[in-house]
Amino acid sequence: MANTKPMFRQLGLIGCGLMGGSFALAVRRAGLVERVVGYSPTARSRDAALALGAIDAAFDTPAAAARGSDLVLLALPVARTEATLRAICDALAPETLVMDVGSTKTDVVQAAAAALGDARLPWFVPAHPIAGKAQAGVAHAQADLYQNCLVVLTPGTMTNVLALAKARQLWEALQCRVRDMTPAAHDAGFAAVSHLPHLLAFALMNTITEQPDGAELLSLAGPGFRDFSRIAEGDPALWRDVLLANRAQVQAQSALFRAQLDLLEHCLEHGDSAQLTTLINQASSARAAWKMGG
Amino acid sequence: MANTKPMFRQLGLIGCGLMGGSFALAVRRAGLVERVVGYSPTARSRDAALALGAIDAAFDTPAAAARGSDLVLLALPVARTEATLRAICDALAPETLVMDVGSTKTDVVQAAAAALGDARLPWFVPAHPIAGKAQAGVAHAQADLYQNCLVVLTPGTMTNVLALAKARQLWEALQCRVRDMTPAAHDAGFAAVSHLPHLLAFALMNTITEQPDGAELLSLAGPGFRDFSRIAEGDPALWRDVLLANRAQVQAQSALFRAQLDLLEHCLEHGDSAQLTTLINQASSARAAWKMGG
Repeated sequence: MANTKPMFRQLGLIGCGLMGGSFALAVRRAGLVERVVGYSPTARSRDAALALGAIDAAFDTPAAAARGSDLVLLALPVARTEATLRAICDALAPETLVMDVGSTKTDVVQAAAAALGDARLPWFVPAHPIAGKAQAGVAHAQADLYQNCLVVLTPGTMTNVLALAKARQLWEALQCRVRDMTPAAHDAGFAAVSHLPHLLAFALMNTITEQPDGAELLSLAGPGFRDFSRIAEGDPALWRDVLLANRAQVQAQSALFRAQLDLLEHCLEHGDSAQLTTLINQASSARAAWKMGG
Repeated sequence: MANTKPMFRQLGLIGCGLMGGSFALAVRRAGLVERVVGYSPTARSRDAALALGAIDAAFDTPAAAARGSDLVLLALPVARTEATLRAICDALAPETLVMDVGSTKTDVVQAAAAALGDARLPWFVPAHPIAGKAQAGVAHAQADLYQNCLVVLTPGTMTNVLALAKARQLWEALQCRVRDMTPAAHDAGFAAVSHLPHLLAFALMNTITEQPDGAELLSLAGPGFRDFSRIAEGDPALWRDVLLANRAQVQAQSALFRAQLDLLEHCLEHGDSAQLTTLINQASSARAAWKMGG
């Protein structure tokens, strides 16, 4: 594909962590961008991103990384979205595609509406790639983190159709499956399949460590515990923001969960073997039938 | 090690599933046994165990597999322990080492005390190897399933010291770490780190599938959900038995869990970002510090 013009001239990466760093490596590898500049709040992560070859130049303000870029990706904790968009708004050239990678979308859409004027808002396409791994930080970034993953876009009536098409084309070029949802449907869905499981994993870890013999209990734990509790290691600041941003939906899902837990415990209380079998069968066969991305 | 006499002449395997089949393959590979005979309730699993080379001969009663064996392993759902021990008791030769692999121990010890007379009970050593994988059945058996895993033995005052020493030597020869616990301490510990997580995973799956758009929700789920929910696929009959056998401890752990979930939800309800950060930090750093078998 020599002499093919890349889709973008310059990526301005706002946030050089696991998600941002992996995105930069991926778009570089796919030949979608000529140059990458990055902002990160700490010199340490800027240096790490430079050393890794994720970015070509580092800046210590978001606006400096946005200036001159025709693609901007916000990869920061969602609570920082509005302030960051306000900080870069005047530096954005017309028709610069701006996206985020946040795990919640209603709050991000509100932040964008508040921070970006009528000229810039149409070129903001909220995005949520369903990818990640336990270890945070750009040092763990990998060019294939997004490969084969689902990316949910939540455009609104203000979104420019060309911006949306470009966003879709970009993620598809990274071999992602792309789908559109409303912010509300996105947040309700991920409350169920992601945010609630994180809440439960945090609660389970604290259940164990709060017991006087917590260390002894943990020494007994095996592969089932390892997999179940993996997501409890998630970045605390990130998950605090996600859970607070989406708290109404998370609480609604938690109430449904408690009702299901009540049903199971009722069987234990009453020794109802038949009903317990039915409930576990339901869970087990649903899990066996599930395939990621299926 | 040519001409070294194996530790056992014949293993009588009672239950040719994932756990039993893997044990047979492991003791064979380690040269610990000359011959393996097996019982399984269905012709299908007997044939599969023969085809896999896990057993040399198959029988359709537990007693037939126990007769002539100097090592007997019960690898059946824990609720079948007492009836199975009664069925094999008269077929057991003196000083035949009998073990189980069940996930609960108080009930197993009670079953053994009820089923085995004073002559046989001292040679029963309750064992719980902390190993497994999602797929059940002998077809998924593997000789290294137990390698590097923890094996908890729960001997009582009746247990013969030679039997206990042999049991320990056997598991150590399979490269397991062996530790002794009381049945009560075992059951309390595994209620916390295994049985409760399974209960939560079952409840989470049912929370999702009971919603009208459950299939749509599952289509959004990513790698975090995959790992968290893996244990929900566990064998329903096995987990029904475990949860019922250990229900008092499971309910006690579930009550502690609900209190931790309440704390987290209280933070969401009141937007208490500082306290939520503290709670998630506690969970995240405990999980980061945990190492299996550490």
